[in-house]
Amino acid sequence: MADPVLVEVTRGALVESRHRGAVAVVDAEGGLVLTLGDLDQPVFPRSAVKALQVLPLVAEGHADRFGLSAAEIALACASHSGEPAHVATATAMLAKAGREPDCLECGAHWPLDEESARTLVREGARPGPIHNNCSGKHAGFVCLACGLGTDPAGYVLSDHPVQGKVRAALEELTGSVHSPDRRGTDGCSIPTYAVPLPSLAYAFARFGAGVGLGGFADAAKRVRAAVAENPAMVAGRGRFDTRVMEALRERVFVKTGAEGVHCAALPELGLGLAVKCDDGAKRGAEAVMASLVLRFLPVEGEARALLEAAAAPRLRNWNGIEVGAVRPAGPLTWAGRA
Amino acid sequence: MADPVLVEVTRGALVESRHRGAVAVVDAEGGLVLTLGDLDQPVFPRSAVKALQVLPLVAEGHADRFGLSAAEIALACASHSGEPAHVATATAMLAKAGREPDCLECGAHWPLDEESARTLVREGARPGPIHNNCSGKHAGFVCLACGLGTDPAGYVLSDHPVQGKVRAALEELTGSVHSPDRRGTDGCSIPTYAVPLPSLAYAFARFGAGVGLGGFADAAKRVRAAVAENPAMVAGRGRFDTRVMEALRERVFVKTGAEGVHCAALPELGLGLAVKCDDGAKRGAEAVMASLVLRFLPVEGEARALLEAAAAPRLRNWNGIEVGAVRPAGPLTWAGRA
Repeated sequence: MADPVLVEVTRGALVESRHRGAVAVVDAEGGLVLTLGDLDQPVFPRSAVKALQVLPLVAEGHADRFGLSAAEIALACASHSGEPAHVATATAMLAKAGREPDCLECGAHWPLDEESARTLVREGARPGPIHNNCSGKHAGFVCLACGLGTDPAGYVLSDHPVQGKVRAALEELTGSVHSPDRRGTDGCSIPTYAVPLPSLAYAFARFGAGVGLGGFADAAKRVRAAVAENPAMVAGRGRFDTRVMEALRERVFVKTGAEGVHCAALPELGLGLAVKCDDGAKRGAEAVMASLVLRFLPVEGEARALLEAAAAPRLRNWNGIEVGAVRPAGPLTWAGRA
Repeated sequence: MADPVLVEVTRGALVESRHRGAVAVVDAEGGLVLTLGDLDQPVFPRSAVKALQVLPLVAEGHADRFGLSAAEIALACASHSGEPAHVATATAMLAKAGREPDCLECGAHWPLDEESARTLVREGARPGPIHNNCSGKHAGFVCLACGLGTDPAGYVLSDHPVQGKVRAALEELTGSVHSPDRRGTDGCSIPTYAVPLPSLAYAFARFGAGVGLGGFADAAKRVRAAVAENPAMVAGRGRFDTRVMEALRERVFVKTGAEGVHCAALPELGLGLAVKCDDGAKRGAEAVMASLVLRFLPVEGEARALLEAAAAPRLRNWNGIEVGAVRPAGPLTWAGRA
């Protein structure tokens, strides 16, 4: 059966496009609090689990060994925009491990932040792996390899000790086996393992609530604090994750992944949230996530206005004329009807 | 009932995302040749109907009055990439009507072609309305206004004589009433009217076959020839519509629209095709359109290889590693399985 329509995109008085998807909201004991759509289908979490992938670096003492700052730990959880501060921070992380940006194996793309991309163009420069939105995570992987006393070369491969550590952490937190038949290769070349949405939500419930984390408990607490102190490191100016965490700090951890995945933790409620927009659309996943945070978390004032605007953004054309809107639909119609 | 899944996006051995949609393939008498999904839902055709919107300019003699070239007529049908040739051609069209680019009311955005955008950055320039992908269409509207002896100012508004002419042509070709309750505002600020997919396909069947066009018959023939001679004007380097029409010339007319709309005419078969990807995804609509052309049109050699690649493109990550593919699914699985 088809997943429900969760988001509609209107133009004038009509619905122009529709996004279907699935949602799991789970508590730290694994109890299902809200479910929508097909939950059996395994989902590649992509970049949504970066804050879990960084746990071995912190838990095993390598972050301290290299003196990584909170901002650097936050950048290791990031899909950053390639702003100058992101690039400088990733470079500094590598320098602490005695490495240069050319050891990064994530591939190069232009900064997501348009002004930062234009600055590169004006300088006659081309982007390198350091500008890749994953460069902080990869700098963390290089630090982990160096901390383990292993050659970082090939750290993106599934049989490298770095990915072994990362996979073990993900398996422990999600409670889902990360077997080769569930493996894909991510945009930045590391393995990504498809897991059911409730397993993803379960991992974030525990990550947020600080329970059931075994040897990762202190590390998770530190990562959460690092992100809450440095939300601009995790995405970038104007972006959803940065704006929501700037507004709500430790009350919400939220992280986007490619292809319409979005995960979050609401620590004070002990809840984890996982969203997959079937068609991979970021605009759909963000509207759903904003709706869910509004549904569960008591939020007032500017933070509420921000979430309502993110749940139902108005669409303007090239002349700034309002032509339509994105809006939660079907089972999500509680939200964004300001 | 949900529309069928027409396109799957894989990663490794798994399906990561799915695109649902609707399809109408119609002959020049309005007979339904192939239908998929919900056909009652009105669809905003957006830029997919630019070749129909240009018909009054040509049919009423204004294109000849201003001496518009075939390349200029093709650009009036374009969602172009803002390459230097596109900008120069739009500027030349306006000059023939004695107008400057500042009369364009489409709003400004950076050229879709990244290298052209970077050239602007290097020059310290900002994009203007002339770089808007719709600037050729709008230059045509300005020529139409001047030809009609009307002030072009406000030519984007539904009550301007230009949009009256355009609406009448669309109503005649689609056979569908363009009433205010079906009206939205397009990205470039002109009205766009939602019509059922079969009506869109019917219009393109007649546009391609050259039948049932009334006073637009000669104009349609001329527009089709202009586009077939100048496919690089209609989109830009590397883009689907340009590549398909470079390969197949007058055998296929094909035109993208925003939010997952794609229309085509197959003149030798007398067929019109209209696709709507429910979620608005271009990658979904292009794969569906390529699959449909392969299904109906006998094509061999390089053109066939091009269509097969467009129906099922391989996806590579930032390191150039193949990580997955887009592929036709469900009722479209005949195509792209090279």
